[in-house]
Amino acid sequence: MYQLGTKAFELLKEIAIHGADPIGGETRFLYTDDWLQAQNFIKTILTKSGFDANFDEIGNLFGRIGGTKYVNETILTGSHIDTVRNGGMYDGQYGIVASFLAINYLKEKYGKPLRNLEVVSFAEEEGSRFSYTFWGSKNLCKIAEKSDVMNLSDENGIRFIDAMINHGFNFRDETVPFRKDIVGFLEIHIEQGKVLETERTEIGVVNAIAGQRRFNIEVTGEANHAGTTPMHLRKDAVYSMSQMINYIIDTALKYGDPLVATVGKIVVKPNISNVVPGQVMFTLDTRHTDKTILSQFNDEIFKKLEIIAKSNKTSVKIDMWLDASPIPMNPNMVNVLKDACIANNYSFKLMHSGAGHDSMIIAPFVPTAMLLVPSKKGISHSPDEFTEIEFLEKGILTLAEALYKLSYFE
Amino acid sequence: MYQLGTKAFELLKEIAIHGADPIGGETRFLYTDDWLQAQNFIKTILTKSGFDANFDEIGNLFGRIGGTKYVNETILTGSHIDTVRNGGMYDGQYGIVASFLAINYLKEKYGKPLRNLEVVSFAEEEGSRFSYTFWGSKNLCKIAEKSDVMNLSDENGIRFIDAMINHGFNFRDETVPFRKDIVGFLEIHIEQGKVLETERTEIGVVNAIAGQRRFNIEVTGEANHAGTTPMHLRKDAVYSMSQMINYIIDTALKYGDPLVATVGKIVVKPNISNVVPGQVMFTLDTRHTDKTILSQFNDEIFKKLEIIAKSNKTSVKIDMWLDASPIPMNPNMVNVLKDACIANNYSFKLMHSGAGHDSMIIAPFVPTAMLLVPSKKGISHSPDEFTEIEFLEKGILTLAEALYKLSYFE
Repeated sequence: MYQLGTKAFELLKEIAIHGADPIGGETRFLYTDDWLQAQNFIKTILTKSGFDANFDEIGNLFGRIGGTKYVNETILTGSHIDTVRNGGMYDGQYGIVASFLAINYLKEKYGKPLRNLEVVSFAEEEGSRFSYTFWGSKNLCKIAEKSDVMNLSDENGIRFIDAMINHGFNFRDETVPFRKDIVGFLEIHIEQGKVLETERTEIGVVNAIAGQRRFNIEVTGEANHAGTTPMHLRKDAVYSMSQMINYIIDTALKYGDPLVATVGKIVVKPNISNVVPGQVMFTLDTRHTDKTILSQFNDEIFKKLEIIAKSNKTSVKIDMWLDASPIPMNPNMVNVLKDACIANNYSFKLMHSGAGHDSMIIAPFVPTAMLLVPSKKGISHSPDEFTEIEFLEKGILTLAEALYKLSYFE
Repeated sequence: MYQLGTKAFELLKEIAIHGADPIGGETRFLYTDDWLQAQNFIKTILTKSGFDANFDEIGNLFGRIGGTKYVNETILTGSHIDTVRNGGMYDGQYGIVASFLAINYLKEKYGKPLRNLEVVSFAEEEGSRFSYTFWGSKNLCKIAEKSDVMNLSDENGIRFIDAMINHGFNFRDETVPFRKDIVGFLEIHIEQGKVLETERTEIGVVNAIAGQRRFNIEVTGEANHAGTTPMHLRKDAVYSMSQMINYIIDTALKYGDPLVATVGKIVVKPNISNVVPGQVMFTLDTRHTDKTILSQFNDEIFKKLEIIAKSNKTSVKIDMWLDASPIPMNPNMVNVLKDACIANNYSFKLMHSGAGHDSMIIAPFVPTAMLLVPSKKGISHSPDEFTEIEFLEKGILTLAEALYKLSYFE
């Protein structure tokens, strides 16, 4: 039972050897020996299975089964090989393994496709070693620039460019334009949330990747003695903040899915039990698949934050430090994925992805869509990341069905 | 104008030389050379003015003007000579200087009293060098024990006992009981709050020192991805905490003076902007002059915190780590102070002290009351501590009037 799922699990365990972290999980950073070994391991698997496997200049790995008819049309599928520090063995890696197994399954069952089928193992997505994300897919799309990374070094002072060259790679030729043959991109990934698990649904079909805005919000009042300052003479920054957080989260709950709002970080000054706090900084992370609604939500709460600040004799300063637009998936590709779930008789949910993915980078250039499989307890970026073999298999078979429809028919 | 106030300010500046901190303000810790110089400076002033000045075994300094009739009855007045690190030149020190000037003023104006009048400059109150507070007044009241300090060392590893002996002092004779002659104690202190300043009142007459209870409150939810966890699936510890803080402060405002409640410290885990917080610890400092009302307030809010925790699918753990009972001042002594304000035609406010003072230690043994003078912006424990010379003077004259009533009449 679950032959493909079991095979995927075995391959993931073999990849996990390259970058196994003594502290736990996997730390497989871009342009390290572990990273190169993992890419070479995948290259060997691909070659052995009859794929034409090659690296591009920067270290993205592609494995192709050539089409018999539409040789200038390629359906690309895959994900990234790098991990966060002490990450799990599914994030990114499952997308590569599933893509390989799905294409291999089709090849064995139906022979060669009409269009080219290609697996990609992106060099980098997480931005864990150098402060630059999506290096792999941004190079595919020709939107990564030399200047983006020229001055980057890792925490040990090793320069990006030195790490790259020492592992046999280099900057892409910036005169070469984006590949015209790629007519579709599919990515399969673990959910990194627990919606599918909670709703006992086998497959998530992503229709959009949420946009997000992140803010630092600073509330200033006045520090005072906790014993000698009567309540009505206080300018308590924490009391003001609490009212703000309540309003933000209450409003987010009222807006409902797919809006999410998170206050993840709080820094109080002076942070002493017997001093009325004079200042507090908290972060706000807001996401939605519709930019207009996200803006409307932000405008609405910020207007109220000013009022709350004033009513507590405090002031508020709001600083936006991240603003990423939502990325819709291609409706035709979404339909292909939905149809694949229906054909396989799997339960599925049309949903957005709250996390960023390579698909987000590629979607503006190529018709793109994504599949998600359930994550146990929604855990991700942790050694405890886990997806049942059953769901690994169902993800692969859904991806295979979609690739079949896209590559084996006129 | 304000001769006594000016004289007080000059003496305070002279005391401030001993322990002047290059970083700012004064750092005059127990059993240091600066501390001893300050005590000796005061001893010289007292002696020169005809006071009989002596140290007790542990380093409290007493200066007496003997009574002509009731030689076994002493009215004691004073405060402490030590400061916090980078403290101001008023906290404690003003109480000593004002006591000396008030008694000196009476002596010059009316001659010798019927009862003994005695100034005390307590060795220590703040607990800034060693983690032990009220060493001075607790020794006067014979409630400090050798064992309390035997194992204490300061941050440089110097033992309490070595510091004490090296400066010429030692433990008190524990067989000697509490002095029977002390029939009243008065302390004058800067307010350390801004009630008097805000209400443009010249004198505060303290009727109670607030009791306090401090708690650590831990809220546990579940850490989750800020992008992929829909609002309704969250167990957000910070949202739960915010509702709790709002309820606590709203309820404290409803109770009104003299209840105060402060959330001064917040520690969030993991405290990352894109993670729904799984845990948060916050402190709660609650004070009131009436123990029953303080308990009632604590019970009321803690019942509600449980409900709030549950309604957010979180749990709450409350740990009380400080429980100090309120200390009422002696009603007769309070009346003497009120009458003194009236006699001097000063505006006054009957109020509690939210901060602890030597009076709190002495009150259970001797009829005790306190006067407060306005503090600029309520600042204390800072080089910016400041009280106008006018208020220094009015404090001294009020204290003098009260001492006059207590010591010059049958």
